[in-house]
Amino acid sequence: MHVSSQDEFALIARLTRSLASHSDVLLGVGDDCAVLDLNADTLLLATCDSQVEGVHFTLQTASPEEIGRKALAVNLSDIAAMGGTPRFALVSLILPSHFSLPTLDGIYAGLQREAELFSTLIVGGNVSGAGKSAQLAIDITLLGTADRGHVLTRSGAHIGDVLCVTGHPGDSAAGLHTLLHPLASSEPALDAAGETKPPLAYSEPALSTVRTAHRTPHPRVREGQLLAQLGPEIVTSLLDISDGLSGDLVHICERSHVGARVEVAALPFSPSILTIAVEAQYDPLLWTLHGGEDYELLFTVSPAHLQHVRDLIQNTTGTPVTPIGTILPASDGLQLLFPDNHIEPMPVKSWNHLAQ
Amino acid sequence: MHVSSQDEFALIARLTRSLASHSDVLLGVGDDCAVLDLNADTLLLATCDSQVEGVHFTLQTASPEEIGRKALAVNLSDIAAMGGTPRFALVSLILPSHFSLPTLDGIYAGLQREAELFSTLIVGGNVSGAGKSAQLAIDITLLGTADRGHVLTRSGAHIGDVLCVTGHPGDSAAGLHTLLHPLASSEPALDAAGETKPPLAYSEPALSTVRTAHRTPHPRVREGQLLAQLGPEIVTSLLDISDGLSGDLVHICERSHVGARVEVAALPFSPSILTIAVEAQYDPLLWTLHGGEDYELLFTVSPAHLQHVRDLIQNTTGTPVTPIGTILPASDGLQLLFPDNHIEPMPVKSWNHLAQ
Repeated sequence: MHVSSQDEFALIARLTRSLASHSDVLLGVGDDCAVLDLNADTLLLATCDSQVEGVHFTLQTASPEEIGRKALAVNLSDIAAMGGTPRFALVSLILPSHFSLPTLDGIYAGLQREAELFSTLIVGGNVSGAGKSAQLAIDITLLGTADRGHVLTRSGAHIGDVLCVTGHPGDSAAGLHTLLHPLASSEPALDAAGETKPPLAYSEPALSTVRTAHRTPHPRVREGQLLAQLGPEIVTSLLDISDGLSGDLVHICERSHVGARVEVAALPFSPSILTIAVEAQYDPLLWTLHGGEDYELLFTVSPAHLQHVRDLIQNTTGTPVTPIGTILPASDGLQLLFPDNHIEPMPVKSWNHLAQ
Repeated sequence: MHVSSQDEFALIARLTRSLASHSDVLLGVGDDCAVLDLNADTLLLATCDSQVEGVHFTLQTASPEEIGRKALAVNLSDIAAMGGTPRFALVSLILPSHFSLPTLDGIYAGLQREAELFSTLIVGGNVSGAGKSAQLAIDITLLGTADRGHVLTRSGAHIGDVLCVTGHPGDSAAGLHTLLHPLASSEPALDAAGETKPPLAYSEPALSTVRTAHRTPHPRVREGQLLAQLGPEIVTSLLDISDGLSGDLVHICERSHVGARVEVAALPFSPSILTIAVEAQYDPLLWTLHGGEDYELLFTVSPAHLQHVRDLIQNTTGTPVTPIGTILPASDGLQLLFPDNHIEPMPVKSWNHLAQ
């Protein structure tokens, strides 16, 4: 029986089923961060996430600096997903022995750049050699702080709350698609029947936009902090979209014991994703619902406060906030409302890091 | 230019040369743990260390439980090396897709067992898939606490201080030697000339003792706490021996700007290492000076307090404490005093994790 026979979440549940609990641990395994109480003014948040060569990135499709930036960004996003403030990072590298030193310098420069952007200090780490054919792994633990009473989790969504999302989920998956499926030429061409075929290169600036979303996602730290300041009575649940909107919505529903309906017509498709979707002949709904690595925030708001929350985030940060659905009773499950008003169960196709 | 062209410490220095500092970071990269000030009653310690299959362990020479225990133990030892109390662990796994699930269960059981032994809570983690031929990597971040004014570092050794070590450094390297160089048979034999050849299997219980030292080292958490309670006026520097006594002594000397003399006649060779050394026809001094992964504590004590410190540690924990040398001016370098009173410069052959 191999680990690849289990999905990531089943495996984590299996490994952590008998962990001890303690009053210092306000939240352990199962949310974006652990929440720890060290009798300080603030609570301590702790999270870790890895980026593995060939699984999460390749040196062919991203620059060393971009790889370094993203390795920290995915952790910053976990702190953002609790409404916390990132503070200290520990960087652990598993290094193939023949890894290029200038490339490693570039990765580290990207890490430091991202750390500076988010006022985070790299305070420690480790370097372990691995074999010649090993894959580079960048494993980062990020520590943050959060005010008592202002930590947002996955577990507080109520029936009737409005489901909201920041930014334009799906752009990252569209960017990945363009990297995995480049078009052959920049010239349009005629097919055998004399009809114009689709263009053979993705258009700029849409291409740059979606590739940037994939290579250097912008963790929504400030947005998360603003949501947390409003408190859990107003913003009832929060997480970041790392596995895909559908898969991460499942986490909110499971933890909050609710269901949800997402309205397709309300989803915030960016102009760029629509352009790329036409050129790739691909349904952008699949990218937006099931594409991973957006690192946008998905959250629920009590309906009376929706306008205030939207205005606050958008006016303070410039980041769009879009209401995309409603929280339902758990018995309703996850639903997708189409523009013609028919409803289907929402398929959940989470990014499974173990199957890569 | 490849990473294998640099030793581990040169590489870490290269990567971290431009890190920012901040008043919240009392100690960053360069000691066993980062020391962070979150305005709590206690200071926060943070460390991370990886164990990589084929580099730090193999499934042929250790059980899954032993691998899991050691992966946490090496981190517990870093907390011990500051005199802190281990509290919270985050466990990050890089998993080859065909890794055996029962083996993984065993590793995790070992992690949990070691965590329980040292009252440490596993509060988070991550699982990342890697390719079929990847090596399993277990990367752990451990958080601990330490009382203000009672954090022991590598940097306080003074000329005239006594250099001390806990336990029996070298046993781990001897244990590794027996795993890498098994003897062929359990029967003694005569050679062609009718002389008795050395026995063809290592003797018990010496074999079990040194292999246990290698497979499940005992982090000296309680010993480190007792040393830290005495304070930095009495115990002037402290670290754990992970890279080898000689290599780790270099860290104290560099950080404290001193030299040191180690007396060969004072080194605490265990009966087991002496037995195995005869059977392996190997010089045990090399294991004791340069063998890595002992996870014993190496520390310096102001001479007036030596007897008190030894009595306190030995009476409270049962762990032997042996004075093995003296701190000298930096200009004297690192010296080895042999039983015939001649002195040689101490060779430094640190375990280089990148060259494996």
